Amino acid sequence: MATDTTAPADPAPEPPEAVEAAPASPVPSAPGSDDPKHPQPAVDVPDLRLLLDGKYAEVRDLVRTNLAEYASILEEQETLDREAFRERVKEVVLEMAATGQTGMGFPQEYGGGGDVGASFAAFETLAFGDLSVLVKVGVQFGLFGGAILQLGTQRHHDAYLEDLVTGKLMGCFAMTETGHGSNVQALGTIATYDAEAREFVITTTGPEANKDYIGNAAVHAEVAVVFAQLEVGGQGHGVHAFVVPIRRGGDAAPGVRIEDDGLKMGLNGVDNGKLWFDGVRVPREALLNRFADVSEDGTYTSDIENPGRRFFTMLGTLVQGRVCVGGGGINASKVALAIAVRYGLKRRQFEATSETEEELLLDYGQHQRRLFPLLAATYALHFAQEVVAGQCHQAFSGEVSDDADGHKFRRELESRAAGTKALGTWHATRTIQECREACGGAGYLAVNRFTALKADTDVFTTFEGDNTVLLQLVAKGLLTDYSTEFEEMDQLGMVRFVAGLAVETVVERTSVHKLFERVRDLLPGGDQWDQEAGVLDSDYQLAMLRFREEHILGGVARRLKRGIDSGMNPGEVFSRVQDHVIHAARAHTERLVLEAFVDKVRAMPDGDNKVVLGLLCDLHALSLIEADRAWFMEHGRLTVVRSKEISRRIGSLCRRVRPVARELVDAFGVPEEMLRSPELIG
Amino acid sequence: MATDTTAPADPAPEPPEAVEAAPASPVPSAPGSDDPKHPQPAVDVPDLRLLLDGKYAEVRDLVRTNLAEYASILEEQETLDREAFRERVKEVVLEMAATGQTGMGFPQEYGGGGDVGASFAAFETLAFGDLSVLVKVGVQFGLFGGAILQLGTQRHHDAYLEDLVTGKLMGCFAMTETGHGSNVQALGTIATYDAEAREFVITTTGPEANKDYIGNAAVHAEVAVVFAQLEVGGQGHGVHAFVVPIRRGGDAAPGVRIEDDGLKMGLNGVDNGKLWFDGVRVPREALLNRFADVSEDGTYTSDIENPGRRFFTMLGTLVQGRVCVGGGGINASKVALAIAVRYGLKRRQFEATSETEEELLLDYGQHQRRLFPLLAATYALHFAQEVVAGQCHQAFSGEVSDDADGHKFRRELESRAAGTKALGTWHATRTIQECREACGGAGYLAVNRFTALKADTDVFTTFEGDNTVLLQLVAKGLLTDYSTEFEEMDQLGMVRFVAGLAVETVVERTSVHKLFERVRDLLPGGDQWDQEAGVLDSDYQLAMLRFREEHILGGVARRLKRGIDSGMNPGEVFSRVQDHVIHAARAHTERLVLEAFVDKVRAMPDGDNKVVLGLLCDLHALSLIEADRAWFMEHGRLTVVRSKEISRRIGSLCRRVRPVARELVDAFGVPEEMLRSPELIG
Repeated sequence: MATDTTAPADPAPEPPEAVEAAPASPVPSAPGSDDPKHPQPAVDVPDLRLLLDGKYAEVRDLVRTNLAEYASILEEQETLDREAFRERVKEVVLEMAATGQTGMGFPQEYGGGGDVGASFAAFETLAFGDLSVLVKVGVQFGLFGGAILQLGTQRHHDAYLEDLVTGKLMGCFAMTETGHGSNVQALGTIATYDAEAREFVITTTGPEANKDYIGNAAVHAEVAVVFAQLEVGGQGHGVHAFVVPIRRGGDAAPGVRIEDDGLKMGLNGVDNGKLWFDGVRVPREALLNRFADVSEDGTYTSDIENPGRRFFTMLGTLVQGRVCVGGGGINASKVALAIAVRYGLKRRQFEATSETEEELLLDYGQHQRRLFPLLAATYALHFAQEVVAGQCHQAFSGEVSDDADGHKFRRELESRAAGTKALGTWHATRTIQECREACGGAGYLAVNRFTALKADTDVFTTFEGDNTVLLQLVAKGLLTDYSTEFEEMDQLGMVRFVAGLAVETVVERTSVHKLFERVRDLLPGGDQWDQEAGVLDSDYQLAMLRFREEHILGGVARRLKRGIDSGMNPGEVFSRVQDHVIHAARAHTERLVLEAFVDKVRAMPDGDNKVVLGLLCDLHALSLIEADRAWFMEHGRLTVVRSKEISRRIGSLCRRVRPVARELVDAFGVPEEMLRSPELIG
Repeated sequence: MATDTTAPADPAPEPPEAVEAAPASPVPSAPGSDDPKHPQPAVDVPDLRLLLDGKYAEVRDLVRTNLAEYASILEEQETLDREAFRERVKEVVLEMAATGQTGMGFPQEYGGGGDVGASFAAFETLAFGDLSVLVKVGVQFGLFGGAILQLGTQRHHDAYLEDLVTGKLMGCFAMTETGHGSNVQALGTIATYDAEAREFVITTTGPEANKDYIGNAAVHAEVAVVFAQLEVGGQGHGVHAFVVPIRRGGDAAPGVRIEDDGLKMGLNGVDNGKLWFDGVRVPREALLNRFADVSEDGTYTSDIENPGRRFFTMLGTLVQGRVCVGGGGINASKVALAIAVRYGLKRRQFEATSETEEELLLDYGQHQRRLFPLLAATYALHFAQEVVAGQCHQAFSGEVSDDADGHKFRRELESRAAGTKALGTWHATRTIQECREACGGAGYLAVNRFTALKADTDVFTTFEGDNTVLLQLVAKGLLTDYSTEFEEMDQLGMVRFVAGLAVETVVERTSVHKLFERVRDLLPGGDQWDQEAGVLDSDYQLAMLRFREEHILGGVARRLKRGIDSGMNPGEVFSRVQDHVIHAARAHTERLVLEAFVDKVRAMPDGDNKVVLGLLCDLHALSLIEADRAWFMEHGRLTVVRSKEISRRIGSLCRRVRPVARELVDAFGVPEEMLRSPELIG
């Protein structure tokens, strides 16, 4: 952190390897106090928790109270059979809905809370508990409710919102098909307008065009928002959404076939199913017509001419789902870390520093190295999530204009949501796994939470957008600079666009000269900025990430152009550059995440909490650089000496985090009832 | 480091980025044939399968047949309740036992197959199927049977082996306690000799001294091999093993308390439980007395004087369990890869190279990059497993002498088994996860296998030795050069030993001069060997791994010594160097694995299969170097240009593997019934 500008500059020349092992001063040292310049700070847990809870502390506390009240669900997940558990989850969701916690994002006139930001806070906090409850809430209020709210108009709002907010009307979001999950523009379900009857006819075409993995479909949903290719008078207009009743009195509606998706790895409290439509008729008004409509006589109208752009505009209004899933993954990580850190503070194994008492796991350097960078990343992602949730709140609360600036804001929001979701959910998978292993065989017992955490969060990395595909979306936005053509382009189009039009802009933007200029905004040193700054200087850390992001991006653009110029098939060109594309998106998102953390710490009032979060922020930044240090060395931005120094610093930061590790997980405010693990956490 | 003076200075100027993008020749190319010098080889699948199956092809086929016959177990795992599934698993285990497949490792006079190597082959192959069956086999025949066979003498063999080989007598292996899993020398159960009654009295002392996580204990075991601190006449002799009846007619034996461990993340067909002993009396003959005995009058005798060494000698005879778990993890990875690769050859998403047809997942560069290095590593680990299983066979078939050489052989075997188990099981966790994600949401449905694969294999990384602890064991062996003191040393002892006695040997052995000498054995070039050799030269690849291993090892030794010399607490010194210790062990094991692969390929007759395995071997080697390329750059063994070349080569090797990917997974010979995934693999 910037406060650490007293950090020594690089030791030059190549340090005698000595420095790698131990601190400069070889005095025996108590854990955490190995730097006499920095006395051990004490964490004020309630204060830190308030910082984490932010604006919506009250909402989060409401959810915490609800979670504790329904804590039995964690055991019921193990003891009830699938059918009974599904019913129990529904029951809990409805009872929670009655407290208002699940309807925060809906307009007040329909019984909602009228606060989009509050809905994210409520959803995220729910991730401390059973995740079937979380996902069922997401399906009912986020996906189904969100589609009605965002894609529909007054008539749909009046017809459905009040009942869906209470959960009286259960619905589902029927987009994905067996054959198409990521490429939803190519869905096989069609909706043909019958002008005479003034109805749409919904039909599943072909063997893989059935809807699949649809939450709430197997048992509970009465209606579905069905995404289908609209055809009017023999002409296709792309994918649109329709409200279709699928079940009446528990039985499938006429023309609708429903199958249960069966046992899943986790989330078995959610009833996922398949849907087939055999000429199912719905009235003309069933079209969710905010962005396009069909008149009685069969005239298609839309304010957005380009079908691709229209579709992505529709999808864009559903960005809240991604924001929610990212937040869910990040908060599930907190549960895992809280257990693993507390176990590490209770469990002893092997004599190490003492002949008579075995050592606490958390006093082992390797154990700190496995857990603390993940703890730091969890804090970083928490604050990054706060930023994306805040921007999403703005966009959906009328605070963003409808002009070009607003357009760019929305595109950047979508990109940020995609990137944060991808990194947040991969982080969850990795963190939960590492924490399970850090709890040894005990972590394998279901009572100790990892069973459900692992199984339930697993699909987060591929639902609401496959993470790899999402990172491509991020890269596409970066490469096209969120140009207005952004939404219309498929993969091939993007390659051609970049190779043709955009490459010069990108290349120019990412020329070494420009990169240096931009870095200089952060670090006013000379061209040796990467040598002169202290590694604990946040501006140095940010400059490194910014340099990397733009450099990779420029490389991608140049490679795409070179491939096209050489006559290769654009798809083949893309395929070969794809790992760089993903790397660029990851680098970009990592920079945004670090920025969020740095900004947060800088804004804190002075005090011990600020010092501690500064340590965590440094640990996160250096861990990011360390993980990709080969790239930095390959691109001349990291010397061998400095690379080794960074690794050494990480060890020393871990030792400084060690004495406050318990406080740092306590500040997450995971209700004790949600941790279970009676023998692990003491 | 002095060697670092040869490190390339920072790239000056930035190397022409051109080389990073596409192959030198920018000619449009069909997948896999982008190198005109290398026509696409065709794989002879049956031949390759025979190569993989090796000496024990018949045994493996017997197990495959059994697996297919009991394929319903995969569904029963989902449909039966826990109690019924446990019974079903027991039934299947017993029926398989009747075919001889589970008793291969026992002497023929007791109904076994008299071939230790065959027992590994059988066990590994079983990992294609339900893993509760696998683990129950491991518990009954490996752990329980192995303890009776290896730690017992004739009287125990006569009393138990015949019945346990058929499964008529079910037993368990009661070592781990709630309080001690890794540090089993500190177990809390005691066995006091009562000379008057000529009995041992087994007692659980203290709240965490109960046995825990013991497979077969909750329901099926009638006897347990109990590990306890032996006390004779008030004197402690360390941990010994006793045969203790724990259940009669379904009820716990007097003085024994049994509790079910309850629901686990996976492996719920195995009945794990806790055991408490309250002064349970067993006759003097219950001591498994191969390595130590107590006479009737209470005289303790052992050929091995040092208690630590005695204990580790006992443990050493149980190395087969670790060999088995490693092989199980590797083969479970094959199931995941077979499904993911076949899905990638069926599933299309997004138009890429064609305007009319969507692209196969496996034709995307990123998809190849996620799966093929894991495929290559699976082959590498398979051959490494063959080596360790072969050496284990030798050691347990009287082919290894009892002198110092034999001693060293056994210690190296233990180290190799530990390393292969750690890398093989972490590989399984990673591969199964990556394959699940590569199958998208479909991978989340239980019918598609990943549910069970993920949940069941998860504990492999921490049972039969926590992987991190195992890697420390490997490093300890390397640092002490398998000295005879090796087994006696605890962690503190090791630090002191290395810092005191061994450091000079290690430092001398890993001096730059010696390192270069050893590398020169492989690569007769000059000191520029790392610049001159082609990156596809196996000798170059091996030299790189060998250099790394020894360099890290030398660094660890020096750091330990320096810490001790500076007056730090040895435990604190160890803690700070621990990540290097782990890195050294990993580097060592990775070198052994690569050597096994290279040796295998070199021994193959010329032909297309050799060409293809050569590609895979290169892919594996370069992936290892790429993953740690930062280290190689930091230590002057990799230039920026070469580092980038390696990444590029990996992409090009992936494209060459692509056309034979299906054949490469088919050669694993996973029975179709074990893949399930009806909609994924087509």
